[in-house]
Amino acid sequence: VVTATPEPKALAAIPGLEVVFSINAGVDALLREDVLPATLPLVRLVDPAMTAAMTEYVLGAVLACHRHLPLYSAQQRQSIWRQLPEKLAQTRPVGILGLGELGQSAAARLTANGFPTQGWSRSRHDIAGVMCRSGRDGLDSVLRSSEILVNVLPLTPDTDGLLDRLALAKLPRGAWLINVGRGRHIVETDLLAALDEGGLAGAVLDVFEVEPLPPGHPFWSHPRILLTPHVSAPTSVETAARVIAGNLLGYEAGEPLRNVVDRTAGY
Amino acid sequence: VVTATPEPKALAAIPGLEVVFSINAGVDALLREDVLPATLPLVRLVDPAMTAAMTEYVLGAVLACHRHLPLYSAQQRQSIWRQLPEKLAQTRPVGILGLGELGQSAAARLTANGFPTQGWSRSRHDIAGVMCRSGRDGLDSVLRSSEILVNVLPLTPDTDGLLDRLALAKLPRGAWLINVGRGRHIVETDLLAALDEGGLAGAVLDVFEVEPLPPGHPFWSHPRILLTPHVSAPTSVETAARVIAGNLLGYEAGEPLRNVVDRTAGY
Repeated sequence: VVTATPEPKALAAIPGLEVVFSINAGVDALLREDVLPATLPLVRLVDPAMTAAMTEYVLGAVLACHRHLPLYSAQQRQSIWRQLPEKLAQTRPVGILGLGELGQSAAARLTANGFPTQGWSRSRHDIAGVMCRSGRDGLDSVLRSSEILVNVLPLTPDTDGLLDRLALAKLPRGAWLINVGRGRHIVETDLLAALDEGGLAGAVLDVFEVEPLPPGHPFWSHPRILLTPHVSAPTSVETAARVIAGNLLGYEAGEPLRNVVDRTAGY
Repeated sequence: VVTATPEPKALAAIPGLEVVFSINAGVDALLREDVLPATLPLVRLVDPAMTAAMTEYVLGAVLACHRHLPLYSAQQRQSIWRQLPEKLAQTRPVGILGLGELGQSAAARLTANGFPTQGWSRSRHDIAGVMCRSGRDGLDSVLRSSEILVNVLPLTPDTDGLLDRLALAKLPRGAWLINVGRGRHIVETDLLAALDEGGLAGAVLDVFEVEPLPPGHPFWSHPRILLTPHVSAPTSVETAARVIAGNLLGYEAGEPLRNVVDRTAGY
């Protein structure tokens, strides 16, 4: 089965099912209770075209924050001409949470464009030009020194609600938050409090606890939030079909499946 | 004298004046009638820090257009969740008008980030990975094939009003315009017409015919214009002072002045 978010128990009803291929990079929706039979291999999508799209989005969002575009846009709506202090990428430290395929690619691209880049992940990684950290202490250190924080983590029980009031309070005054992971990584009310009272400059959000974002949600009208409708790394039918077919053909020829999800880790 | 935009005839009143150093990259304001004595050498600012700032702004603006950020921002203000078609940089041709220090640097950076990049300038240039054109035919070709057009030209009698209704009509349907040159490169009413009737997707504008942009100007409230208050390459006192002092010290030691403006060409 090739699927995104099937109904609970729909997969259990299919006889002789051998493998489930996700059409998304994040498989949290498939790991919810009762969706997936316990022993079935689940394959997440690792598509170079999707990684490229995510990398472009992250670089664009980081540059938008770096050059205050959401704030200039808010000023524009009030006809305010006010120049904000500008500086170069080399003096703007960026932190990336999550160093899987997507996080590694984004970190490398940010480094190539001059941003001093740190990364954090559960397990230790090594990326040229990127200071990589892990563990709780590592997270603290990345939070405390990132003027722009980019979340690309997978959603697991460990990362659910990771960016709460305490975590957001560790960011430097005037920091920016970019979320392309999952909405549930951020405690949304804590983000609003950090923006309104905690010194966070602004946020670029592509994912939300409930999608589409419900009418009346305070994010819609917040002057320092730029929101995009979950478009950072859309699945491309053409390239995803090729990736999944390649994996499947190898499997049928007796090779091991690539990118099988570790059900304990959750990604 | 080190100056930006002195009063007409103020410089003529200074006895024994040998050189005028502009603190801006663009010297159009200094070349207006009666500002500068006719035979005085005028030096424009070529500051690597300014070039870096402009390059970051242009890359950020191109990525913002590439990923429709101004349109998503307009949708957000109406609480609209609508995903627009996304594609990769490699299929988004960008054109750069002006291949001086700033244009060359921007073109190289866009190429490094995957955008097929063409450049146009008065005189023929050669930049690795960038298709360079010149002349009227060259301009037509760049306009017709650029989904994102970036203007970094100097303002001269030749380029004043270059982006008029006819020129804008040559851009592909759904194209974007980014202006970091001078406001007068664009015929503002023609830009509004191109946005509202001509199929131009949107514009990111950092410079305007009159600055600060006057209250009530239609750009302030246009839903598909993102405007920034002339911040693409702000002069940094620290680095500009070092550049100008270095040029001056060399001059006093008998070396030729660097970056002297060609008064006929206007830059």
